[in-house]
Amino acid sequence: MTKEFFEQWEGFTPGKWSDGEINVRDFIQRNYTPYDGDESFLAGPTDATKKLWDEVMELAKKEREAGGVLDMDTKVVSSLVSHGAGYIDQPLEKIVGLQTDKPFKRALMPYGGLRMAEKACSDNGYKVDPEISHIFTEYRKTHNAGVFDCYTPEMRACRTNHIITGLPDAYGRGRIIGDYRRVALYGVDKLIEDKEDQKAFYTCPMTEEKIRAREEIAEQIRALQNLKKMAEIYGCDISKPATTAREAVQAVYFGYLGAVKDQNGAAMSLGRTSTFLDIYFERDFKLGRITEVEAQEIIDHFIMKLRLVRFARTPEYNALFSGDPQWVTESLGGIGIDGRHMVTKNSFRYLHTIENLGTSPEPNLTVLWSPRLPAGWKKYCAKISIISSSIQYENDEVMRVTHGDDYAIACCVSSMRVGKEMQFFGARANLAKCLLYAINGGVDEISGVQVGAKYRPITSEYLDYDEVMERYDDMMTWLAEIYVNTLNIIHYMHDKYCYESLQMALHDREVKRYFATGIAGLSVVADSLSAIKYAKVKVVRKDIEIKNKKGEVVSVAKNVAVDYITEGDFPKYGNNDDRVDEIAVDIVKRFMQKVRQQQCYRHGVPTTSILTITSNVVYGKNTGSTPDGRKLGVPLAPGANPMHGRDTHGASASLSSVSKLPFTEAQDGISNTFSIIPDALGKDDKVFMGDLDIESLAK
Amino acid sequence: MTKEFFEQWEGFTPGKWSDGEINVRDFIQRNYTPYDGDESFLAGPTDATKKLWDEVMELAKKEREAGGVLDMDTKVVSSLVSHGAGYIDQPLEKIVGLQTDKPFKRALMPYGGLRMAEKACSDNGYKVDPEISHIFTEYRKTHNAGVFDCYTPEMRACRTNHIITGLPDAYGRGRIIGDYRRVALYGVDKLIEDKEDQKAFYTCPMTEEKIRAREEIAEQIRALQNLKKMAEIYGCDISKPATTAREAVQAVYFGYLGAVKDQNGAAMSLGRTSTFLDIYFERDFKLGRITEVEAQEIIDHFIMKLRLVRFARTPEYNALFSGDPQWVTESLGGIGIDGRHMVTKNSFRYLHTIENLGTSPEPNLTVLWSPRLPAGWKKYCAKISIISSSIQYENDEVMRVTHGDDYAIACCVSSMRVGKEMQFFGARANLAKCLLYAINGGVDEISGVQVGAKYRPITSEYLDYDEVMERYDDMMTWLAEIYVNTLNIIHYMHDKYCYESLQMALHDREVKRYFATGIAGLSVVADSLSAIKYAKVKVVRKDIEIKNKKGEVVSVAKNVAVDYITEGDFPKYGNNDDRVDEIAVDIVKRFMQKVRQQQCYRHGVPTTSILTITSNVVYGKNTGSTPDGRKLGVPLAPGANPMHGRDTHGASASLSSVSKLPFTEAQDGISNTFSIIPDALGKDDKVFMGDLDIESLAK
Repeated sequence: MTKEFFEQWEGFTPGKWSDGEINVRDFIQRNYTPYDGDESFLAGPTDATKKLWDEVMELAKKEREAGGVLDMDTKVVSSLVSHGAGYIDQPLEKIVGLQTDKPFKRALMPYGGLRMAEKACSDNGYKVDPEISHIFTEYRKTHNAGVFDCYTPEMRACRTNHIITGLPDAYGRGRIIGDYRRVALYGVDKLIEDKEDQKAFYTCPMTEEKIRAREEIAEQIRALQNLKKMAEIYGCDISKPATTAREAVQAVYFGYLGAVKDQNGAAMSLGRTSTFLDIYFERDFKLGRITEVEAQEIIDHFIMKLRLVRFARTPEYNALFSGDPQWVTESLGGIGIDGRHMVTKNSFRYLHTIENLGTSPEPNLTVLWSPRLPAGWKKYCAKISIISSSIQYENDEVMRVTHGDDYAIACCVSSMRVGKEMQFFGARANLAKCLLYAINGGVDEISGVQVGAKYRPITSEYLDYDEVMERYDDMMTWLAEIYVNTLNIIHYMHDKYCYESLQMALHDREVKRYFATGIAGLSVVADSLSAIKYAKVKVVRKDIEIKNKKGEVVSVAKNVAVDYITEGDFPKYGNNDDRVDEIAVDIVKRFMQKVRQQQCYRHGVPTTSILTITSNVVYGKNTGSTPDGRKLGVPLAPGANPMHGRDTHGASASLSSVSKLPFTEAQDGISNTFSIIPDALGKDDKVFMGDLDIESLAK
Repeated sequence: MTKEFFEQWEGFTPGKWSDGEINVRDFIQRNYTPYDGDESFLAGPTDATKKLWDEVMELAKKEREAGGVLDMDTKVVSSLVSHGAGYIDQPLEKIVGLQTDKPFKRALMPYGGLRMAEKACSDNGYKVDPEISHIFTEYRKTHNAGVFDCYTPEMRACRTNHIITGLPDAYGRGRIIGDYRRVALYGVDKLIEDKEDQKAFYTCPMTEEKIRAREEIAEQIRALQNLKKMAEIYGCDISKPATTAREAVQAVYFGYLGAVKDQNGAAMSLGRTSTFLDIYFERDFKLGRITEVEAQEIIDHFIMKLRLVRFARTPEYNALFSGDPQWVTESLGGIGIDGRHMVTKNSFRYLHTIENLGTSPEPNLTVLWSPRLPAGWKKYCAKISIISSSIQYENDEVMRVTHGDDYAIACCVSSMRVGKEMQFFGARANLAKCLLYAINGGVDEISGVQVGAKYRPITSEYLDYDEVMERYDDMMTWLAEIYVNTLNIIHYMHDKYCYESLQMALHDREVKRYFATGIAGLSVVADSLSAIKYAKVKVVRKDIEIKNKKGEVVSVAKNVAVDYITEGDFPKYGNNDDRVDEIAVDIVKRFMQKVRQQQCYRHGVPTTSILTITSNVVYGKNTGSTPDGRKLGVPLAPGANPMHGRDTHGASASLSSVSKLPFTEAQDGISNTFSIIPDALGKDDKVFMGDLDIESLAK
């Protein structure tokens, strides 16, 4: 890449970032201004902001009245350049750009799967143009079609019987954050030049891996060219670096907008943009070309646009994810590896949008928490949390160790270095159901179908801990293998038929790919094993009629363990009792070890997560009664939570149990949904703030 | 696969082929009836045949009058089920099925490359529907688009400067022969069952290779399902084995028809069907349900349909291949590995179509020649050769050693076991031009552009043999590397965007893939090196202005060797003179060795060929003057031929030179175009026959 100091960079401290390499972190570190003050400098919403937001609220009302969807594209397949310019109220908008040509109109995205796109339409009273259905059946294969061509019967059975659930085989895998800041800092032309260099990196011998790399970069270059065209549709030139803060915000937003026009990933996160953009605002302030009111207006309008992001989803998708979260996650604050905190005035502005526009789940504003954050910021976070319950906190102390100081959160907890790492999202394996499979020799306790490996079932009346653990270990080995290999197929096909060309265009050439897995039902497993070990668990068996799709009985599974009678008490996870907490830790370690033993697609680095924040309800519905006394259909606890009501020794004991789980063995994140009455913690804000930092306990 | 002896198989000797495996060879060997008689049993054309053929001739005339193309599809993309039934004259046709809904109407095939499809239309006065162009630009990537995304600038330069030519990067690679006989013998349902078993073979771990295999088999199954549908369009059920000879011929033809609806490969060969089908005819004769007139009529109509195969091509394609050959090659005769010859009455019927319908270059009837063939057959071959000049002969003695007795010829010389082997076609590297690059340090002698490796050029006035050979060896190393890697990209993308799903559905699970390369200009190289060694060659150098696309001079290449003055005489290839013939052998061995050193896509087994039968003219046009005295633009000799007029020691000496080339080092075939006046060989047929067997000299 040629060296060039753009005139648009005047006033910035040069460095590696301006010396012929793409290096946003270096730019930030050399140029940002930490802010230690409080929120008193912030400005309220302008009239334009208020008017725009009223118009948005009016549309949102109409959307609700229309049953959840206001308008859908049924003919135009979404791409960066598929639509003309769209506005809420053009003269008022400081930051422009919509996913389609109208606000709240949902785009048509069939690349992930045609039936999903068709169903999303039909369930909302729309119908995909038959010509589009024809094209995506006859000429253009989809990700979903590719996956189902390759699934084995065993994989399909795992899916049908919900031991593996929520697989991204019919929707975008998400968990990829384009470094949208690069668009502002370098301009698209420079990014294309860099990509041309990257392509040239791959020389003979032309192995399949190198051929794929060259083709992907060619697709990335095409995406960048289209990104410029998309901006041109809105009258903007993003070929060169941004000159002003407003241009910078606009460029970052265009990068993001391109991504959500291109992909309908389950999580389309924004990254870590506030401190980066603060540098532009500070320069504009220095040059006297902006006021705080104008600065806040730009951020308000930016955030407003992020709140408008919508995808066409099916009711099943919404059931799994409890609505249609986009996980437009923006990571705020955190501490730099040089020790300076990374809170800027612009970090405050982002949070302040909750006051100016009202509360909202999106964008998912996530504070990277550290005890070393400045007091003014901590206080303001607490304040906004109290009024909105809309802020997510994550433990910067833990993540910084692995990821440095330019990582961000994709979705809810998946941390990755921006532009350098991405994740192959992998949904979840149901470890609670796996325990039942261990007891039943792979026979599903609900359908009666042989789903798991045909190991010997346990036939004794009372469960023996050592026997169960041995079987469970074997069954987890089976589960880890089928799970990872199912994901191998999914990610191969996603790359082949639904490649995230724009998002990957905003990444380095060499990208570290996390191969994410996830586990559900941890606390149920821990408590069940504890019950087997410390109490007496009697098995209730019955025959299960196996039915075909028409509901006809085709065979009978004999003596399937379907219920358990627990005699006596046992230690329960969530009470800081090592006897059971150690079981939970052991299970996490074992499963992660088994995942690591698999061959992961594309040299993916395996990780796992314990974070079924919402889908635990669906998982529980499909899991039979468990030895801990939980009955068939009862929700599993979310994420790493103790089962509801079993953590009887107080908040601190409950949190202590969770904090024992090793982050290194569950690096994609451990979530603990923890509701608390402020009064329980004390009488003033100060005490409350102290305990917000839940995850820092997990050190 | 379940074992099942179909009622349609009654009268056949069972064996491995009927015992739960797909094994056509076993069926043939157990059931065929060698025929040692002469052609006296043959029947002339029926009235229906004559009338049909007249109608075809009428259409052919109209096609010529229309400038070469009678009609083209511009809107319907060709697939197995894209068109309704098409007929010449339905009531008369014993064998039905056309590529489109009308005879001579060319199908639209954009998967290989949109621009090629568009140009084939526009050059013939048609225009592809803009919606199709949109779909194949916006939604569906083509093979050609994939290839050009990945080519390096060096590869593009090699292509532009014609050191590598005729690459299948915008047309179907061909050289894949589906075992169309399987459709008749097993019926499609059984083939699908077998493919389901094959898919199940690929289990965890799901590596990329296995995922690809599973997806390809899924595509193959879909193709077989569509093949049944295609037959249904013509009112035929091919789900079960064929009952009669007519049904068997129809089923074989449907298999082939599906292939030419799906792919427009440069060579769409038929295989080795005559002896297979003879078994059905013999059974029908035994049962008294057919007459010879009827048998011949079926074959006449079958062959007629093969003669109707057409593709939409561009003038450039036609120039390279001297017209639009389809290479519908059918391999006849040969000797079985048990020693029995494989000539049947039906082999005669195939040749007899030339008498009944008149001569035609297609199908390319190829006799697998052996001295051990029965006299009646040899005589009849000679007779048909004399009246038609339409028969190709290939050396069964050489090929049987490697391929057994159920191989066939794809295109003109590429031998492969039917249903078990296929070839990645690789066009040619121009070794004559490579020699000039060796002298000029990689600078192209026509464009002046640095195309080859930047080795030191030869600067002396007179060429020194050892110096030239050293440079040439280095430059061949460079050429082999860039050539094979270019092909790696082409075949990767062909598999990805233009996979031959039906043809591969008629193959075994494990297929041996020949990775074919080819060389052009061998005799020019041999003679040039001989001139340098045995005479004196003086170099003429000049500066070459390098022009951009607009024709503007952008730079000047200094002192490029552009011509040679040869002083004195030298041994010339084609005179059975070891001094030069050994050079030719050495070059073939060296180049093949260098090809073998490369990494070939998909475990391809490298081969090379010396067989530029027609394209030698185009290659010569793009090759500068050579040290043998050949001037810029003069055609290279075809294939392994001596340069025209230089083989001055008679036919036998000329053939002896060619026969020294080692088949094991050029296993994809060595061609020698040899015109001869019958009188030169003697006065009667007997002598003539003896020398037809040109390639058996190469043992």
